[in-house]
Amino acid sequence: MERIKCTIAYDGTDFSGYQVQPNGRTVQGEIERILTRMHKGQPIRIVASGRTDSGVHAKGQVIHFDSTLNVPVDGWLKALNAQLPKDIQAVMVEKVTRDFHARFNSKMKEYRYRILNRPERDLFRRNYVHHVSDVLDVKKMQEAAEYFIGEHDFTSFCASGTSVQDKVRTIYELDVITAGDEIVVRVVGNGFLYQMVRIIVGTLLEVGKGKMDPGHIKDILVAKDRRSAPATAPPQGLYLWQVNYEKQTGFSIMT
Amino acid sequence: MERIKCTIAYDGTDFSGYQVQPNGRTVQGEIERILTRMHKGQPIRIVASGRTDSGVHAKGQVIHFDSTLNVPVDGWLKALNAQLPKDIQAVMVEKVTRDFHARFNSKMKEYRYRILNRPERDLFRRNYVHHVSDVLDVKKMQEAAEYFIGEHDFTSFCASGTSVQDKVRTIYELDVITAGDEIVVRVVGNGFLYQMVRIIVGTLLEVGKGKMDPGHIKDILVAKDRRSAPATAPPQGLYLWQVNYEKQTGFSIMT
Repeated sequence: MERIKCTIAYDGTDFSGYQVQPNGRTVQGEIERILTRMHKGQPIRIVASGRTDSGVHAKGQVIHFDSTLNVPVDGWLKALNAQLPKDIQAVMVEKVTRDFHARFNSKMKEYRYRILNRPERDLFRRNYVHHVSDVLDVKKMQEAAEYFIGEHDFTSFCASGTSVQDKVRTIYELDVITAGDEIVVRVVGNGFLYQMVRIIVGTLLEVGKGKMDPGHIKDILVAKDRRSAPATAPPQGLYLWQVNYEKQTGFSIMT
Repeated sequence: MERIKCTIAYDGTDFSGYQVQPNGRTVQGEIERILTRMHKGQPIRIVASGRTDSGVHAKGQVIHFDSTLNVPVDGWLKALNAQLPKDIQAVMVEKVTRDFHARFNSKMKEYRYRILNRPERDLFRRNYVHHVSDVLDVKKMQEAAEYFIGEHDFTSFCASGTSVQDKVRTIYELDVITAGDEIVVRVVGNGFLYQMVRIIVGTLLEVGKGKMDPGHIKDILVAKDRRSAPATAPPQGLYLWQVNYEKQTGFSIMT
């Protein structure tokens, strides 16, 4: 029995999210179906660093599973990519020790959020960016971003209905970057609550539109109430970019 | 009764091509369904500048139709975009005289073909580019492109099974441009035969891979035989970029 760590990318457009559910096509469901077939019907379960919602993409999601097959890492990569549907890609396969856990051992995650900021929408990016036609004040958004850095109770930035008790998380980096006609929000933290990145982006958008002062972020954090923060930004702009399992190691800017 | 000219864009991924057919979702079918509903069930037929195959995209396809509704052009644009599915967009609406015909009056068309030229495929561009991992010699492709310019019998670059008799067409411009990790083929002509652009691109790719000398294009043109030219490039890299109805007017480079 070997534990396999696999880095995967997926286009979230045609999935009802990552996690298996009774109805709807899911990333987990597709991968487990293929792994189970490779193991001649023996059911294989995979564990991910965390779920992603319907429409949310991943460039570097990490999963692990156990296998009795004796296949080298290159063989795994080829076999998976030969069988996976076109909207899931295996990026890297590693053999890890049995104590590796994709969710519990994750030390850092990076998400990115792409905002298309121009008057006209773009048909071909409709599933990959959030279109905002109002002119956004990037400087103000950058100023607002500073207030999120550090350790905070992010209750106000967590969708209600979650069972997680401890809502203290640390954000190491939060950048607002202009890239052509897009504005990219890049956030690195030790962990993220349910819809936390999308509520942070929703808040930055209010600031960018001039509807909220950057300093008001402090008040929202203190309120510890979801209703104090603006609406959640839509899913299609969001990408789980990478997951890090090494403590105190930063991320290189990866394109 | 008014004749309406409408410029449309669409993402060809989820269509069985432009033209209505018994089974499968088509661009024409979707637009006619909406127009017919707007006309309270009176069937409306649309005429396009030409068909596009399944998976082929359009940035500036042109259609026309006749309407008894008295709606200003801005009203048409809004009404269409409110009802069209997410993968079709009305870009511009104009009122034209009754002798305007989207197909017969077209004087010039521009197509673009996007090639992703790098070792790794890109999950997020899988439906929008043709991935070629071999290193392509762009200079050789540019040299080959020159042989297509001008008036030629393009029988060798026309898919078999077409009913068109006259296969003489004029290509005004054929550029091979590097744009980041992509190579874009841009072609402007007075008209194009069935799959002509994709066979030209397939031929340029053979040259780029070093499997064919640029000068061999001359021989293929002379042969007037589809079997003398290489394989057709796949549909997802192709975009109908714009259609011009004014004689002797060139295209501006539009992004």
